Amino acid sequence: MAKTHPALLDLKDLSKKIHTYQSILSLLHWDQETFMPKGSITPRTEQISLLSELIHEQKTGKAFEKKLGQLVHLGSGTPKVKGLSKSDLISLREWHRAFTRDVKLPPAFVKTFSQVTAEASQIWASAKKENNFKLFAPFLSRIIELSREKASILGFTEHPYDALLETYEPCMTTAKLNTLFSGLKKELVSLLKKIEKKKSVETRFLQRKVDRETQKAITDSLLSYLPMEKAYTRCDISSHPFSIALHPHDSRITTRILPNAFVSNIFSVLHEAGHSMYEMGLPSAHFGTPLCEAASLTVHESQSRFWETLIGRGLPFWHGFYPTLKKHLPHLLKNISLKKFHAAINQVVPSFVRVEADEVTYCLHVILRFEIEKELLSGNLQPIDLPEAWREKTQELLGITPPSDTLGCLQDIHWSLGDFGYFPTYALGNLLAAQFLTAFTKAHPDWEEKIASGDLHFVRIWLKKNVHQFGKTYNLEQLTKKVTGKSFSEEAYCAYLKKKYLSD
Amino acid sequence: MAKTHPALLDLKDLSKKIHTYQSILSLLHWDQETFMPKGSITPRTEQISLLSELIHEQKTGKAFEKKLGQLVHLGSGTPKVKGLSKSDLISLREWHRAFTRDVKLPPAFVKTFSQVTAEASQIWASAKKENNFKLFAPFLSRIIELSREKASILGFTEHPYDALLETYEPCMTTAKLNTLFSGLKKELVSLLKKIEKKKSVETRFLQRKVDRETQKAITDSLLSYLPMEKAYTRCDISSHPFSIALHPHDSRITTRILPNAFVSNIFSVLHEAGHSMYEMGLPSAHFGTPLCEAASLTVHESQSRFWETLIGRGLPFWHGFYPTLKKHLPHLLKNISLKKFHAAINQVVPSFVRVEADEVTYCLHVILRFEIEKELLSGNLQPIDLPEAWREKTQELLGITPPSDTLGCLQDIHWSLGDFGYFPTYALGNLLAAQFLTAFTKAHPDWEEKIASGDLHFVRIWLKKNVHQFGKTYNLEQLTKKVTGKSFSEEAYCAYLKKKYLSD
Repeated sequence: MAKTHPALLDLKDLSKKIHTYQSILSLLHWDQETFMPKGSITPRTEQISLLSELIHEQKTGKAFEKKLGQLVHLGSGTPKVKGLSKSDLISLREWHRAFTRDVKLPPAFVKTFSQVTAEASQIWASAKKENNFKLFAPFLSRIIELSREKASILGFTEHPYDALLETYEPCMTTAKLNTLFSGLKKELVSLLKKIEKKKSVETRFLQRKVDRETQKAITDSLLSYLPMEKAYTRCDISSHPFSIALHPHDSRITTRILPNAFVSNIFSVLHEAGHSMYEMGLPSAHFGTPLCEAASLTVHESQSRFWETLIGRGLPFWHGFYPTLKKHLPHLLKNISLKKFHAAINQVVPSFVRVEADEVTYCLHVILRFEIEKELLSGNLQPIDLPEAWREKTQELLGITPPSDTLGCLQDIHWSLGDFGYFPTYALGNLLAAQFLTAFTKAHPDWEEKIASGDLHFVRIWLKKNVHQFGKTYNLEQLTKKVTGKSFSEEAYCAYLKKKYLSD
Repeated sequence: MAKTHPALLDLKDLSKKIHTYQSILSLLHWDQETFMPKGSITPRTEQISLLSELIHEQKTGKAFEKKLGQLVHLGSGTPKVKGLSKSDLISLREWHRAFTRDVKLPPAFVKTFSQVTAEASQIWASAKKENNFKLFAPFLSRIIELSREKASILGFTEHPYDALLETYEPCMTTAKLNTLFSGLKKELVSLLKKIEKKKSVETRFLQRKVDRETQKAITDSLLSYLPMEKAYTRCDISSHPFSIALHPHDSRITTRILPNAFVSNIFSVLHEAGHSMYEMGLPSAHFGTPLCEAASLTVHESQSRFWETLIGRGLPFWHGFYPTLKKHLPHLLKNISLKKFHAAINQVVPSFVRVEADEVTYCLHVILRFEIEKELLSGNLQPIDLPEAWREKTQELLGITPPSDTLGCLQDIHWSLGDFGYFPTYALGNLLAAQFLTAFTKAHPDWEEKIASGDLHFVRIWLKKNVHQFGKTYNLEQLTKKVTGKSFSEEAYCAYLKKKYLSD
C-alpha cells in the first residue's frame, strides 16, 4: 500500500474536526427546538454565533489552505500529487470546491448576513402572526440587497440567481430550471384540471380530534414499523418538524402534533425519517470527509419524499400499516375502509399553503416561489410589490387567491433566513424520487406486494446501496444516470402522477 | 468614568468565549445523560474530547497569557495597571490563579489523564455491577499514580493531597481537614450512639411502589412549589441525578425515579434544585468572568444541602407541602400523619451507601473516603488492600460491615474519574449550610412559620443576597465570615444535629 501523503492526513484530521464542530452546532439547534428552557435564547444565540464563527474560520483558514495547496492547484483544483485513491480524489475535489467558495465570503459579510437574518426571522414571525407584510418589507429589501451582494461575491456568468442556487444544488442553473419548470408547470396545470373534474372525496374524518397521547403512540408504532436503526435515532415534538444529523450514528427527527390533523403527524414522521435514514446510511467510516456527506439538497429531498409520498401515500404501505393505525383510532376509523382512507390522504385540491399541499399541486407552489425569487433578485420585482405578485401567481398556477399574506407570501420562513435559491430543491427532490422509483421497480418488480406484506427493509437496502453509500461521490446528474440510466428530468414524476391520479 | 484598559477588554472577551465553549460542553454532557440515542456514544466522546482540548488550549494559550501579563505580574499576580474597579481586580485575581494552575499541566498529561479515566470509569461500572474489585484494581493503581504526578506538577508544601484538594476547595488543606474532621467524627459517632438508643421509627411505607407517572407528577408539583425561575430551568430523568448550568439563564437538573423509593426522587429534586438556584442566582451580567462563577464546590454543596436537608427534611417545609404529596399518594399516605412522615424521612440508621445516608451518618461516609484517599495517595495504603481498609473503616465509623464491594469501596464513581480530593466538599457543604442557617435565622426569626405557610421565596432572596450574587468575590473563609460573622467550622452543624435529633 502506498504511504498516505502527510498533508492528506492533516487535511482529513482538520476536516474531521470541522465536521465534529458542525455536529456540536447541530445539537445546539436541536436542543433549541426541542427541550431548551424558554428563557435561554440569549445565551443560545451566543453559543451558536461563537461556534459558527469558529467553523467558518477553520474552513477558510490558512491551515486548511496550506494543506489543500500541497495536494491540489488552488486555482484549478487539479491534483499535484500522484497515486491518490479514488475516494481521496473525490474528497479533494469537494474540499477544493467548498474552500474556493467559502473563502470568497469575507468574515464581516458572513457576520452581517447572519445578524440581519437573525433579526429578520424574528420580525417575519411577528409579521406572519399579524398578517402585516409592511413590517417585514424593509427586512426583505435588506436581505435581497445582501443576497445580490453575495451572488456578486461568489460570481456568476448568466444570472445572479445561479450563484445562490449552486449552494444548494451544484448541478442546476437558472436557465436549466426555466426549461425544466416550464415543462413541469404545463403538465401539472393540465393534470390538475383533469383531476378536478373527478368526483369529490370524503375527507372530513381526517379533521377529527386526536389527543396528544394517542398521536404519540401512533408515532411510536410508525417508527417501529420503519426500517430505521433505532439505536442511532430518536423522535421528539417541535413546532415545525425537522431532521438533524450529528453523525450517521446520531440522527434525530421531530414531528408536529396538530390535534385536528393526525395525518400531518404521520406524514411528517415519514418525511423526516426519509431524511434521517439517508444520513444514517452514509458511510460512517468516512465521517469528516465529503464521502460521508449528502450529495446535495435535491438528493436529500428525494429521500424524504420517497418515503413520505411514493411509499407513504401508496396503497401497499397502508395495506400493511392500516390495521395498526385502526388499533390506535378504533372509533374514528370504524367505518373507514382502507380504500376510503387511501383516497382521503390522496385528495388533490389547490390550497394556499405549500407544506400542506398534495403531490400534484406541491411543485406548483415551488415553481411560484422560484419565479418570484428570481425576479426579486434581478430587481424586476420590488419587495413592496411582493404580496400582489404572490396573489396573481397563485391565481395563475392554482386557480385560487390567498385571503391574507399570512396564507400567502409570509407563509415560509426561508426568505427571512436569507435562503434564496433553496426552494427549487423541494421540487427537484420529487422529480428525482420518481426517477429512483422507476429503477427501484425494475430491481423489485414485486415491491408493492412485499410492502403490502409489511416488509420495508428491502426498500432501505436498495436506497442504501444505490444512493446513501456514495455520499458526495456523484453529483445529481451523475447519480441519476448511474441509478436510472437516464438524465435528470421531470418525465418520471409526471408519468407517476398521471398513472396514480388518472388511471381509474 | 475611566477608560477601560484595552487588554482588559480583550481578556474579558476571551474569557467569555471560553465560558461559552464550556457551556456548550455542558450541553453535550447533559444530552448524553438524558436524551442521546443509545448507540451514539462514540461520536459523543469525540465531540467532548475535541471541545475539551480547545478549551484547555484557550485557557492556557499565548493569547490569554499575553493579555493577562499586560495587566498583572505573571509571577505574583500583582496588578500592573492602576484605577481598576473592585470587580475587575477580583476577576484578575481569579484569572491569574486559574491560569497559573492550568498552564502547569502539559496538554499531553491532560490527554492521558482523560483517556485513562474515560476507560477506568467504564471498567468501574462493570466492576461495581459484578462486585469484582480485582477488575478495577489496576485502573485504580494507574489513576493514583497519575494523581500523584498531577499533585507533583501542581506543587505542594506539606501533603500531595493539598494540591488536589485545592482544585475543589482552595481554602482547605489536608492539615486543616485533619483537625476539622477528627472533631466532627468524634461528635457524630457519639451522637449516633445516643440516637440509636431511641425508639425505632415506622418507615416501611417509604418502600411501597409508586409508578413512574405519579412520581413525575410529584416532581412537577415540587418544582412549581420551589422558588425557581421556571423559564430558565427544566428537569429530566437520568440514571444518576445531577445539576448542570450552561448559563444563569439555562440551568437544568435531573432526578432519578426508583419505583420503591419515592422520597429518593423528592430529595434528589430538592438537592439538585439547590445547586440550580445557586447557578441561576449568579449575576448574569458578569457571565464570562469569575464574578459569575460559583465560589467553590463547598459553597455549591452548601446550597444543595440547604434545600435538601435543612429546609427539605424540616417539619415546616412538610407542613406546607405534605397536603400536595398526599393528593398524589392518597392511598399510600392515608394513615400516615405529617408527624409520622416527618419522622420516617428523618430516621437515623447506619447504612452502606453514602447517597442514601441520613443527615447524621452522611459526613461519616465522607470522612471515611477522606481518610482512605489520603493514604492511597501517600502510598501508605496499596490499592489492592482497599476493600479490606474500607470494611474496617466502615465498621469503625458506622458499626457495620458492607457485605460486598459493590456496597463498599466500589459504590462511588469519583475515583474512577480521577476526582481525588473532591469528596471532602460533600461534608464541608453540610457544615457551611448549617452556618448559613444560623445567620438566616437571625435575619428571619420567624422562618419556620413562614415556610410552614408555604412561602419559600424569602429563603431564595436571602440566599441570593448573601451568597449567590457574589460569585467568586469571596472565598469560603471570607464568605463564611461575611455572612455569619464567624470562621468556618463544624460547630453550627453539630449544634443543628443535636437540637434536631436529641431534643424530644
